[in-house]
Amino acid sequence: MSDTKKTALIISAHAADFVWRCGGAIALHASLGYNVTVACLSFGERGESAKLWKQEGMTMDRVKDARRKEAESAAEALGVHDLICLDRGDYPLDLGPETRSQVVDILRKVQPSFMMSHSKWDPYNTDHMYTTQFALECRMVAQAWGHNPGEKVLGAPQLYLFEPHQTEQMGWKPDTFLDITPVWDKKRAAIECMQGQEHLWDFYTRVAQNRANHFKRNSGGQSGGRDCKYAEGFESIFPRTVDEL
Amino acid sequence: MSDTKKTALIISAHAADFVWRCGGAIALHASLGYNVTVACLSFGERGESAKLWKQEGMTMDRVKDARRKEAESAAEALGVHDLICLDRGDYPLDLGPETRSQVVDILRKVQPSFMMSHSKWDPYNTDHMYTTQFALECRMVAQAWGHNPGEKVLGAPQLYLFEPHQTEQMGWKPDTFLDITPVWDKKRAAIECMQGQEHLWDFYTRVAQNRANHFKRNSGGQSGGRDCKYAEGFESIFPRTVDEL
Amino acid sequence: MSDTKKTALIISAHAADFVWRCGGAIALHASLGYNVTVACLSFGERGESAKLWKQEGMTMDRVKDARRKEAESAAEALGVHDLICLDRGDYPLDLGPETRSQVVDILRKVQPSFMMSHSKWDPYNTDHMYTTQFALECRMVAQAWGHNPGEKVLGAPQLYLFEPHQTEQMGWKPDTFLDITPVWDKKRAAIECMQGQEHLWDFYTRVAQNRANHFKRNSGGQSGGRDCKYAEGFESIFPRTVDEL
Amino acid sequence: MSDTKKTALIISAHAADFVWRCGGAIALHASLGYNVTVACLSFGERGESAKLWKQEGMTMDRVKDARRKEAESAAEALGVHDLICLDRGDYPLDLGPETRSQVVDILRKVQPSFMMSHSKWDPYNTDHMYTTQFALECRMVAQAWGHNPGEKVLGAPQLYLFEPHQTEQMGWKPDTFLDITPVWDKKRAAIECMQGQEHLWDFYTRVAQNRANHFKRNSGGQSGGRDCKYAEGFESIFPRTVDEL
Amino acid sequence: MSDTKKTALIISAHAADFVWRCGGAIALHASLGYNVTVACLSFGERGESAKLWKQEGMTMDRVKDARRKEAESAAEALGVHDLICLDRGDYPLDLGPETRSQVVDILRKVQPSFMMSHSKWDPYNTDHMYTTQFALECRMVAQAWGHNPGEKVLGAPQLYLFEPHQTEQMGWKPDTFLDITPVWDKKRAAIECMQGQEHLWDFYTRVAQNRANHFKRNSGGQSGGRDCKYAEGFESIFPRTVDEL
Amino acid sequence: MSDTKKTALIISAHAADFVWRCGGAIALHASLGYNVTVACLSFGERGESAKLWKQEGMTMDRVKDARRKEAESAAEALGVHDLICLDRGDYPLDLGPETRSQVVDILRKVQPSFMMSHSKWDPYNTDHMYTTQFALECRMVAQAWGHNPGEKVLGAPQLYLFEPHQTEQMGWKPDTFLDITPVWDKKRAAIECMQGQEHLWDFYTRVAQNRANHFKRNSGGQSGGRDCKYAEGFESIFPRTVDEL
Repeated sequence: MSDTKKTALIISAHAADFVWRCGGAIALHASLGYNVTVACLSFGERGESAKLWKQEGMTMDRVKDARRKEAESAAEALGVHDLICLDRGDYPLDLGPETRSQVVDILRKVQPSFMMSHSKWDPYNTDHMYTTQFALECRMVAQAWGHNPGEKVLGAPQLYLFEPHQTEQMGWKPDTFLDITPVWDKKRAAIECMQGQEHLWDFYTRVAQNRANHFKRNSGGQSGGRDCKYAEGFESIFPRTVDEL
Repeated sequence: MSDTKKTALIISAHAADFVWRCGGAIALHASLGYNVTVACLSFGERGESAKLWKQEGMTMDRVKDARRKEAESAAEALGVHDLICLDRGDYPLDLGPETRSQVVDILRKVQPSFMMSHSKWDPYNTDHMYTTQFALECRMVAQAWGHNPGEKVLGAPQLYLFEPHQTEQMGWKPDTFLDITPVWDKKRAAIECMQGQEHLWDFYTRVAQNRANHFKRNSGGQSGGRDCKYAEGFESIFPRTVDEL
Repeated sequence: MSDTKKTALIISAHAADFVWRCGGAIALHASLGYNVTVACLSFGERGESAKLWKQEGMTMDRVKDARRKEAESAAEALGVHDLICLDRGDYPLDLGPETRSQVVDILRKVQPSFMMSHSKWDPYNTDHMYTTQFALECRMVAQAWGHNPGEKVLGAPQLYLFEPHQTEQMGWKPDTFLDITPVWDKKRAAIECMQGQEHLWDFYTRVAQNRANHFKRNSGGQSGGRDCKYAEGFESIFPRTVDEL
Repeated sequence: MSDTKKTALIISAHAADFVWRCGGAIALHASLGYNVTVACLSFGERGESAKLWKQEGMTMDRVKDARRKEAESAAEALGVHDLICLDRGDYPLDLGPETRSQVVDILRKVQPSFMMSHSKWDPYNTDHMYTTQFALECRMVAQAWGHNPGEKVLGAPQLYLFEPHQTEQMGWKPDTFLDITPVWDKKRAAIECMQGQEHLWDFYTRVAQNRANHFKRNSGGQSGGRDCKYAEGFESIFPRTVDEL
Repeated sequence: MSDTKKTALIISAHAADFVWRCGGAIALHASLGYNVTVACLSFGERGESAKLWKQEGMTMDRVKDARRKEAESAAEALGVHDLICLDRGDYPLDLGPETRSQVVDILRKVQPSFMMSHSKWDPYNTDHMYTTQFALECRMVAQAWGHNPGEKVLGAPQLYLFEPHQTEQMGWKPDTFLDITPVWDKKRAAIECMQGQEHLWDFYTRVAQNRANHFKRNSGGQSGGRDCKYAEGFESIFPRTVDEL
Repeated sequence: MSDTKKTALIISAHAADFVWRCGGAIALHASLGYNVTVACLSFGERGESAKLWKQEGMTMDRVKDARRKEAESAAEALGVHDLICLDRGDYPLDLGPETRSQVVDILRKVQPSFMMSHSKWDPYNTDHMYTTQFALECRMVAQAWGHNPGEKVLGAPQLYLFEPHQTEQMGWKPDTFLDITPVWDKKRAAIECMQGQEHLWDFYTRVAQNRANHFKRNSGGQSGGRDCKYAEGFESIFPRTVDEL
């Protein structure tokens, strides 16, 4: 769409979501020359840091610090262009006017070719589903010519919803499988940065392997299906516009 | 997927469906070098030929003949590679074993890069929705290594559902808009071959114009949206497999 | 729509369905001057006659005979214009070409202002859901100018889905509540004709009373809601066309 | 329902929505003697005034002023009884307690026979979908006997959802088509008041023409369908209560 | 799950909801030895006390007082362990941070084996549907190790949605029927405590009787179905985890 | 329900489906003392035996024979009480009157406590989804007192839908997770009997491991979740009837 460097923006509710759910897409597009920005609305400091809180004498600042370091290491492993930790609190997230203003500014600055966020419904984790609603709202504001007039307004980037933890319970249905085999080592390295959630390392490795099976099946199966060892799935919110099917 | 000429297969319940609903996609892909095959399961001789039947002394053969000629003219205008009229009766269609065998053979012969058919639900026209179920069944059989062993089995072509007459009532949701501006003249010419349904000429012209507005909106809107004068919309049944989002 | 007598057609899978599910609508429209035809595809002789089959020495003919008599008595109580028992077998129904031909003929003869049938989905009773698909198919054929050319073709009557036994399991959602208070006595009388299913008499009486509560709530509730003692609910398949909202 | 003049209330997120989406319904009901009130929550000053903002030296006040004038002209063309511009900001709308209090007051004052608002889901424009939730919330509060005790409480008006820009993406399904042919000239005149969005004039004209085709099809099609040149479609939230189907 | 007394928590938007919708489940589990806590977010003082407000000289305090007394009497009749009236206002409820903090504290204190709340969608009463979203949010926060560190965090209790007033309009689908015959007298006694809503006493009695019919049908019907005179239905949000199907 | 031995019936479209999709449930219930019957409608000889067909000189009989042997070995490994190969052809299955009669007889003979079959929708494999419709139809017929009067009629067994290959594309949502850790070795042994589909061995092992994660999460997660190494998920068609939640 643009004649300059391609970009992407990931809006992640908690610090680790971008790793499990779209780490492959990040690393792959980084390798394709995209500048990928990751906006973490929180560190997941309250809700996704059980292991840390089980330690004696833990404090909020120490948890945030540990989670930030993990996120930074993972981002580096994936080749993230810009990791932005908004630190808006979690469980629940603060998705009020101030956060919105920050994310709208990021959207306009990044001008992403595509955006990513969570599933539309998540009864286990309302932070996730409200983040997606929030992402749509920010996209709308960033498109408004009368919001901070004079700034470059946002176009119409796709919003991909990345894979939640229990896909069927969240009503999430992937319509796009991305082959991440070439960058799998980077994703696994990023996953291993998440010291506090080691119980999920193999879970998401198996997810990637099984999505690869789906990739192969949908690209031709037993008759011409392309081999693939690791893949990620995404659900698109908006229709595509194409010149060839 | 193949190193040879690309192909597509349209499965049309009645003779005119392929014109209104995907005439642009046909003409565009023909112009891109695809061999596009259209399989019309019937002529729409009973259910979609009211104008002819209102004439004095009309017979089934004369209706079929007239409809065949219209379909042939339209196919020629669109650049269809092969128009196959299966003549299986309409209202209701005969979608039994014999028809299935014919369509499976066509699928294997054509080896389409993509298939097209009707919406999943159509309370106005059960021929349409049963055709889509039937298309899925034929696709499955054509993929079976044990069906007519020795033949080249089918891969995993996408099945696009083209636009029905009342989209919301049919639960049809397009996820892909195709710019057909370059071939609009051909689609309009094909539309005008449908002498018996002149009341739909302008209807489907307006559909194409409004889909062009959707194309523009989804490709960037007021900020970078690509101009487009005529478009068609499609709903995909299967996920895409990609190397870049 | 027509300048002649208004008509309606109920397509009932088994002999008793028209009583429980739309007996009030039948009696009310009969009282409004409609000719209401009821087509029972079967007597429910296998699947809905447990009480009879528990009797010593019962035969299929005796069951059918008993069920026919019940249906005739109920029809009379409701003011049915024409009760047609097609006797196509049940559990499962025979919904093949011959039955279709019969029902299409009835549709063309009756030219109903509206039709009624079962819910779209019924995991307890596939006869019910296939009857609705079949009703849509027959409606389509009856509209075809080339089906038995020369006959008066069918217009576009609404198809109302009447209330199934477990509404939520069947995915049935009423969009229309009909006040049947003026004819309740007739519906109750018809219900009591169903000697074999006495356990349902009070069940469907309570349904009518609770639907009346819904009627009142939707017509204004505590502020202007109209009093209503008995009601029936219906789900429409097709949009309405109106000159005032 | 009432023995006095009939009324209707349109709740429009932005100034132009009531024109594109239900201008015909407004003009028609005005011509039938209804007092139609339009409550515009905002002028669409930020998000739907791109053309104005592209002008040199534009200010928020000038945009609002221009949009207000357009809305007033359109309202006059349609015969709106009362146009209320709440000026609550857009992209995003302020739908907090103060706005709610204002709209509840309007609901109680107008006592509408029916209400209108946006689709339930709109990923392109969260203002739209939140307005519909908000309309439901205001309706509930206006029905509460303990809210400002002593005021006349609201009954149970239907809430019609008018047509969004991309119906299928918004999951909007019309169940009612209204013939607006008699007032089309007024709607077109109102449309032409929207100087800032000229690219939509023909789009919504085509929508009205194609909805007329649907009107004709659903009122009888080739056999008794009523002619109609322009129509609008609506989705009902609540069931109807009737004395005849 | 726990080696101590089993517990349950009902989150009721208004004072009477817990009686109509799950009074049987409360009484039954109380009789099974559960400590059942009921948290009423409001008294329903504005929206569900029409009868009181129609009295001369009524005040908010008197309405709340009357409703509190009714709720207390009903709770006593049902064997509620702890009735907590949060008094957060109704129509609309205040579901902000303070209410959330209160409910999270209750969740952690009660450590319920299961929770109950309203349907996911309710166009008639947005208080109901927002309460369910709120219940999910509170459940999530109560599970967070970093929320008030040191407290015992919540496990993963099921959230059952109890029966709304118009099930089909709310998209509520029961997956569990509970036989409440042994405690019906207690539920009816509690119902009769609701002096202000006498019009609903028989309505909800009939609901219980008809749900008993569904219980019987689903436990075996005419062949082995268990007799049941009164039942309640519930929809589960989360999957069950079992050792035998 | 019964005072005799508990039973279960699996209806499997093709020979291997019962292994991948519910082998754990079979082995577990066998170990709990259930007699589990497996009815394979076909051997999957045409559609799921690609590896065999790629061998030189393969014939239909040899494929069937090989598939039968695999199925028998797997059934033995799982402790299946009775493996019934109906040999009705595949791609597509013959689900006509003769097959129905056979399966109804089996249902009445087995009198299962629960049944299992495929997902409701499967665009990749229409055999699967038609088998589920067929299972519901057979269940209905087996419940009919007038079908082969004198036989013991069927009660109301639950129908569990086992896990399809691409859950989200099939619209399958598990509501029940079963811990199969105690019998995992048996399931893996059965899986390894499927010599022709070795590419799926690890796929379904990973599925079981990830479902175990879901089991743990839903039984309490980080706070009381029960450890589980292998699990299977199921979707229930019918509501449960219980005496305690």
